[in-house]
Amino acid sequence: MYEQKTLLEAYNAASIHLAGHGKRDVEVLKQAFAGIEGTISSDMYGSGAVIEDFQTEMAEVLGKEAAVFFPSGTMAQQIALRIWSDRKGLKTVAYHPLCHLEIHEQDGLKELHHIRPVLLADKDRLITLDDVRNIGEDIACLLLELPQREIGGQLPEYAELEAISAYCREQGIILHLDGARLFEVLPYYGKTAAEVCALFDSVYISLYKGIGGIAGAILAGSEEFTEESKIWKRRHGGDLISLYPYILPAQVYFRQRAGKMGQYYEEAKELAALFNGCDRTATLPEIPVSNMFHVHFALSKAQVEPVLIRISEQTSVALAARLKETGPDSCSYELNIGDLYSGIPKAKLKEAFELLDRLLQEA
Amino acid sequence: MYEQKTLLEAYNAASIHLAGHGKRDVEVLKQAFAGIEGTISSDMYGSGAVIEDFQTEMAEVLGKEAAVFFPSGTMAQQIALRIWSDRKGLKTVAYHPLCHLEIHEQDGLKELHHIRPVLLADKDRLITLDDVRNIGEDIACLLLELPQREIGGQLPEYAELEAISAYCREQGIILHLDGARLFEVLPYYGKTAAEVCALFDSVYISLYKGIGGIAGAILAGSEEFTEESKIWKRRHGGDLISLYPYILPAQVYFRQRAGKMGQYYEEAKELAALFNGCDRTATLPEIPVSNMFHVHFALSKAQVEPVLIRISEQTSVALAARLKETGPDSCSYELNIGDLYSGIPKAKLKEAFELLDRLLQEA
Repeated sequence: MYEQKTLLEAYNAASIHLAGHGKRDVEVLKQAFAGIEGTISSDMYGSGAVIEDFQTEMAEVLGKEAAVFFPSGTMAQQIALRIWSDRKGLKTVAYHPLCHLEIHEQDGLKELHHIRPVLLADKDRLITLDDVRNIGEDIACLLLELPQREIGGQLPEYAELEAISAYCREQGIILHLDGARLFEVLPYYGKTAAEVCALFDSVYISLYKGIGGIAGAILAGSEEFTEESKIWKRRHGGDLISLYPYILPAQVYFRQRAGKMGQYYEEAKELAALFNGCDRTATLPEIPVSNMFHVHFALSKAQVEPVLIRISEQTSVALAARLKETGPDSCSYELNIGDLYSGIPKAKLKEAFELLDRLLQEA
Repeated sequence: MYEQKTLLEAYNAASIHLAGHGKRDVEVLKQAFAGIEGTISSDMYGSGAVIEDFQTEMAEVLGKEAAVFFPSGTMAQQIALRIWSDRKGLKTVAYHPLCHLEIHEQDGLKELHHIRPVLLADKDRLITLDDVRNIGEDIACLLLELPQREIGGQLPEYAELEAISAYCREQGIILHLDGARLFEVLPYYGKTAAEVCALFDSVYISLYKGIGGIAGAILAGSEEFTEESKIWKRRHGGDLISLYPYILPAQVYFRQRAGKMGQYYEEAKELAALFNGCDRTATLPEIPVSNMFHVHFALSKAQVEPVLIRISEQTSVALAARLKETGPDSCSYELNIGDLYSGIPKAKLKEAFELLDRLLQEA
């Protein structure tokens, strides 16, 4: 009896993937370490050249006084908000309803730090200056995420961002950047990381999104802020004896990929246009402003899954590993362009998208 | 002008080290990964064969229903105490005054979890059944550390441990094991890990002490307990996208070294006897009960440092990387036996200890 493959199985079996840098496997680690001298010593509880040099490098890139390496952004950002709340003597912060802290962290901010978030804007749009003007209560800190991942990676216009920053400074509101994908938006803004970060008091960046490291994050700001963050890092259990298995690959892949974000951005626009050319398919944003976008189908998950499985089996091109149900007749998924996309023959793409268009019409 | 080396510089320059498994450097990582298939996939946020298989293996070794891999013991243990405190509706736990949570974690337990510790026993001795009987207030949980690291790695007699466990069960006090060095004490107790763990409701073990992994910890207990710990792991920022750079070496080194703890223990006794044969030198415990002990000198740090530097320069044997001042005329340091010790020629040891004895007499 023939057993239908699941979408994830079909994805894993396919030889061509649109998104990402490749598999997250042991080989990635081996490759990252292959070029590194065996005699280099581990960091030790936050000290040592391996961690200190990378922190200095990142502080310079971000234009901040100092930077601290964290095992995760979850830890780094809760700590940033805790420090600012303590500084202001105010247990209230503001962020987007789909902020990572609100939907992906099991309420760590509330359960561990007893900080209450004020949710700004609607779920399906960006925070505007007007939203910030109309908070209506005192907040210690405003967190902005660039790009806003859960709505396809949308971005405010740069002038709006500058206006929000100026308003916060005027009002004594601390501004924190969730820059998990900061490097990914620099080509659209036409700014350096330091220029964008200058608008913020503190900044978090991820080292495994567009950069493609193994895991890890950087929290940057004033020396006073980062020193305090190290105390909280110890409290959270993040001041590990050795973080070098994350730091060294982060350094390798940062140097390899930070300069390729413009390429990924152009490729994302090209790929989004291919999706938008298909029946009952639309990307969000329509024209990407970074390496990422969401693909929305005006068909149920149960209708789209067999289409994507058939495409991967017939063309070897895997479009998605999983779909998210967004309604009875709609579903979506996220795409992040990385190193893989440029290696895909254009004829293969054409074949896959012609088939997608046809099968969606028939679905 | 001749510049005197510091003790740490002399230690690093010496070719023979008494303690540990060797350098914590990039080579250790490369070696751990050399024997592992490149195609093995990373864990993903706590899922995947890499993490699940190791957790199952550790649960079996510890004789518990389930086990969870954590990036650090700091995180694992705060979470264990939080879960038990919540379960009992009681924000009080008891532990030794030199417990890791009390002296090495920047008060994370208090600052993040608002749990108040009751300190049992004096700093320089173990917790006894009498101490537990006389707490005089309700506690949710008692934490016992085996061996008690900060006092040289001392251990209660097994019968005492059984009596404390029975008393806690009788009284409805949860018993948690800080087993950072659990495998290291099994040869002395003549028990399996599961036998010792059966006395406890929850257990933490470290994967980089005697085991010699890169970093990481296991928290084990009932399925209900470990499932709750995963929620807190996410809240703490410890549910990383990828923990495999720690898990795979932990598995490699666990299999390599868990069976060598008896050898390390015998070697620790041999080495302690060599120290105890020297002038103004005593080990704590006098006869080790694990792979570790502390060396105490009845001389000031300023007097002992040049002695140790001279020994390392003259014999290539480094006895200590640093000394802790314990009084105006006393200092000490910790020794943990690992793979290196058995490779040291006995004649070298004899030469180093004869010189130590002579120089301390002259100091």
